[in-house]
Order: sequence, then structure tokens, then C-alpha cells
Amino acid sequence: MRITVLAGGVGAARFLRGLRAAAPEAQITVVGNTGDDITLFGLRVCPDLDTVMYTLGGGINPEQGWGRADESFLLRDELAAYGAGPSWFTLGDRDFATHIVRSQLLASGTPLSEATRLLCERWQPGLRLLPMTDDTVETHVTLAAEPPSGAPTVIHFQEWWVRLHAAVPAASIVPVGAERAVPAPGVLEAIADADFVLLPPSNPVVSIGPILAVPGIRDAVEAKTVVGVSGIIGGAPVRGMADACLTTIGVETSAAAVAEHYGPRLLAGWLVDDQDKAAADDPRCADIEVRALSLYMRDLDTTATIARAAIDLAQELS
Amino acid sequence: MRITVLAGGVGAARFLRGLRAAAPEAQITVVGNTGDDITLFGLRVCPDLDTVMYTLGGGINPEQGWGRADESFLLRDELAAYGAGPSWFTLGDRDFATHIVRSQLLASGTPLSEATRLLCERWQPGLRLLPMTDDTVETHVTLAAEPPSGAPTVIHFQEWWVRLHAAVPAASIVPVGAERAVPAPGVLEAIADADFVLLPPSNPVVSIGPILAVPGIRDAVEAKTVVGVSGIIGGAPVRGMADACLTTIGVETSAAAVAEHYGPRLLAGWLVDDQDKAAADDPRCADIEVRALSLYMRDLDTTATIARAAIDLAQELS
Repeated sequence: MRITVLAGGVGAARFLRGLRAAAPEAQITVVGNTGDDITLFGLRVCPDLDTVMYTLGGGINPEQGWGRADESFLLRDELAAYGAGPSWFTLGDRDFATHIVRSQLLASGTPLSEATRLLCERWQPGLRLLPMTDDTVETHVTLAAEPPSGAPTVIHFQEWWVRLHAAVPAASIVPVGAERAVPAPGVLEAIADADFVLLPPSNPVVSIGPILAVPGIRDAVEAKTVVGVSGIIGGAPVRGMADACLTTIGVETSAAAVAEHYGPRLLAGWLVDDQDKAAADDPRCADIEVRALSLYMRDLDTTATIARAAIDLAQELS
Repeated sequence: MRITVLAGGVGAARFLRGLRAAAPEAQITVVGNTGDDITLFGLRVCPDLDTVMYTLGGGINPEQGWGRADESFLLRDELAAYGAGPSWFTLGDRDFATHIVRSQLLASGTPLSEATRLLCERWQPGLRLLPMTDDTVETHVTLAAEPPSGAPTVIHFQEWWVRLHAAVPAASIVPVGAERAVPAPGVLEAIADADFVLLPPSNPVVSIGPILAVPGIRDAVEAKTVVGVSGIIGGAPVRGMADACLTTIGVETSAAAVAEHYGPRLLAGWLVDDQDKAAADDPRCADIEVRALSLYMRDLDTTATIARAAIDLAQELS
């Protein structure tokens, strides 16, 4: 069985652990979002790729869902002592090594996809992790109102998300560079060769959105059977601030509205939580097969059950 | 009083602490060796500048004489887990911050002298620290014999010093790039404006040598009253492997031979240890005023006494 998954960060990584447990024999390829990537202290940081790599490779901080376990923060404190910014993005001492190795590879002309493969040789995540593109895409946010600190109107997604906690309304969210980006080597093939494509409960706007915005990827995905897992339960994101992103693009924060946002050309099946089972009869989900089950990824077992349901639905719809 | 000091790493830094204590009112400018500089993990490391900065700024590991106090090594271990090399040069987690900040400044076009000034704003070393040049100079060592590991014949000084412990005989030691380098802004002025110039007990070949090899610096120094402190006591270096360097350039490892190496055009006065007091009558020290005293820098007091003797001799000879 070949499964290709479009993935953001924490939610996707947790889903992927369940997927690997549910289908240990499957060949899983992950097409990871790089729109969150940012250069900090001269180093290239790829938060979503690293979250998937660390989580599947056993190096994640399981409580917070991102960053390394047994982490310390001497370097952050030292950088702050130098007045080197930004101070709102925390990188741990262990985590820094990943960014240093990647930056050195990129500086020597190694594409991000190859750098990711080399980093994964250490972590052995048990799946193939591909960035959506080797080109630079950075999601930027145009603020609807000037924040108190007088930050520029257009800021990097990470600044909006991490520094402003997405609490300042955004007028638009744009994966800058996506329209000129080329899918990374293997991405289109992994989609075309897959038995089906899964969308984990990642943020539809800033995680899945940038991946689909890379020319060629949406078409490739639409040609396949796609099953998604709603990250919205009971009208709110399970984790993170996807509601702020959905509001920005004019989409209601509900499982049914996100299904409509993806649309039946892309989405064949849609897993929603039990409390959202009414979505099955919602006209916005017409032509999309909706199944309800508990979508809380409480532990590996419950997550594997969700992944199993996604696989079953995809096979049924294929 | 204006004092300019040509400086290597550990020995110079300790001497400078004593000098600052001996002459708290003096304006001290340090012209630091950058021939030891090396790019590791894509980051620019300046061991001698940092040793002076940390030592005078109170951040040094006092036992080992280099690196930061209260240091940890998570990043080093993580880099090793990625197989990222080299493994023979250890950088601590706190120390990494310095190299990250410096590298980011250099990448943005900031000259090394300005980057050093910015780093020193945190450390407040109580003196002005200038790199000998903003240009890249890297001391390389040509091995006389192939080492067991089959390393290339010409290696970076740090590899010879740190990995091979200078145990493989060197055929030559060359500060590569020095002949095309330009003194950093302020260097020639600091020498010209000084009441006198001091040479701390730094390695004559790989610390003081590269500084004097930058065109213009030797001439400027020779125009001043210069007093040196011998780093060789009783026919052996007090610290480090200067004997291997001296042997390479055909100079005996003795206080008298090092004085002859500098020569009377450069050196007006020479402080030797009591056990080398015969150097005063050694023909190799003709035209150089030799004074003997205990040169072991055991603590701040004994070091200040040595520095005071250097100042006194320089003032006497001016």
C-alpha cells in the first residue's frame, strides 16, 4: 500500500504516528509544508518538516508537540544577552544542531529535499519526508490593524503566529513565492503513484494551503482519491489557532465549512468528529463522503483508529 | 597612558588581565591574531579574539583558559549524531551563540572589526579589541610526514593543533592570505598612537607571527618601543606546543632564541624568567634589554607584577 500525506506540523505528525501504527506495511510519503520556514540568526528553520521528523523519529518533546525532548536553552539566553533577535521564536540547544546542519548543506548548494533526506538518515522516521518544494516559499500575513508595537503591515507568518498569537486580525495570508515554486523532486510522483492521498488534521490555510498552492500539486492531488481528517471539532480547532486563519479567508470554523473549502474536486472523503456528524447532511459537504468518529488523538491507539478509518474510507472510495 | 598589545589567545588573555590590573587607567588596545580563525559548521569561529573577549569580560572557563564557563555540549553531541564534522573541534552551547551572532553579522556585510566591537558591547572587556585584519587569513600547516589517517599534506592550523596535537612534524607554517590582507581599521593608528607596544607571552610563530605578517603592521610596530614577555621558560613553552612551531621555523625553544627571532629592530626589551636570566648575556640578545623575573602567571597578582615590569621597562626604554 502506498499512501501519500500532505502535512503541516504537530497535528500531522501525531496523525502520522497513528498512520504508521495502523499500516506498518504501507509505504508512506509525506509532502511537508515549507511555508512556515523562516531564517533566524542566519539559519534556515523548517518547523513543519522538523516536527514530522522529530515526532516520527522519537526525538520530539511529546508534551508540547514540537521541539526536542530533554531540551535546554542556553543558546537562546546567550543570543538574548547579545541582543540578537528575534526573541519571540525559541530554539532549543539540541534543535539548533538541526538548523546548523541544514543551513550548512543549503549553503553548499544542497537542495532542501536532499538536506531533509540527510537529516532523516539520523532520525529514521519510517517514512519518506519530502518538502513540498526546494524553492523558498514563506507565508506572509497582512495585518488588518496595526499592532501596538508598530510592526510592519506585512509580517512573516511565524511572527503573526508566535509573537502575536494570531490575535491581531489578518487581512490576508499569502504563501509568498508559491506561484513560482516547483514541486520538489519526487513529490508529483509520490502523489501519482499513491493508492490514495490523506490530509491529516492540519491547518487548511497555512499548512495544507501552501502545499496545494505550488503549481502542479493540486492537480496531481485532485487526480487521486483523497480523504481528509477534520482538524476542526465542534466549531473550534483542536489545537492552534486555525480559526483565525479560516476567518481571514472567509471560511467558517466548522468541519463542514472546511470540507466545502477543500471542495469535492479535491476531497472524496471527510472524517469528522462525532459531535460534527450533522456535516454528513450539510449541503456544503455534497459529493463528499462524510464519516463521523471520535477525532481526538489522545494517544497512539486512538490516533491509529482514526488513521485506520481514513485508510478504510479511502480504500472504499477508490 | 596608551598601550597597544599584539595578542594570541590564552596566554595573551591572562597577561591582559594582569595588565588591566597593573594599569587600570591605561587605554589598552589589543590587536588580535585571526590566523587561528576557522569556519566550522558554516559558522565563523575566531578563537583568539573570543578568548581575549571572554577572559577580560568574565565569561571564560578559568580552568581551561578558553571557552565559556558553565558550558554544556548538547549541540556538539547533536551535530555528532548527524555525522556532521569535524568532531575534533569542540564548541560549547554558550560559545555557539557568539559564532552564530558573528556569522550573521559577517553574512550581512559587517566587517569582522565591527562584528567584534558589537560582540564586545556585551562583554565590556575594558579594552579595545581589534582583529589584525578584516580580511581572511588562515594559518595553514604543511605536514612533514603523512599522518596515519592520511590527511591532506596541507591542513588548517587548528587541525594540526587540536586534532594532531602538533605531534606530526610540520614542514612549514604559513598565515595564508596575510600578504594580501589589510590591517583592520584602527590597527595602524592604535600602534602609532601608543606610548609603547607589548608582546604578551603568546606563540611567536602562530599568534604574533600572523599579526606581523599583515603588511604595514610590522613597520608600524618597529617604529615604537616594544617590550615582549617570553612564553618560553627554561627551554619549554609554559603552555601549548610553541616548541613544535619554533622547531618548524628553525628557531630553538629558548627565551634567547625567541628574542633573536623577533630581533632588535622589533624588540627593545625582553622579559625572561629568572631561570633564563643568562639570556641577558647571550649574544642573540645583543641590543635587546633583557630583564629577568618570575614569569609564571599563577594568579592575577603575579600576572599584574609581570605586566607592571613590562610597563616599567617600556617606559624606561622609550
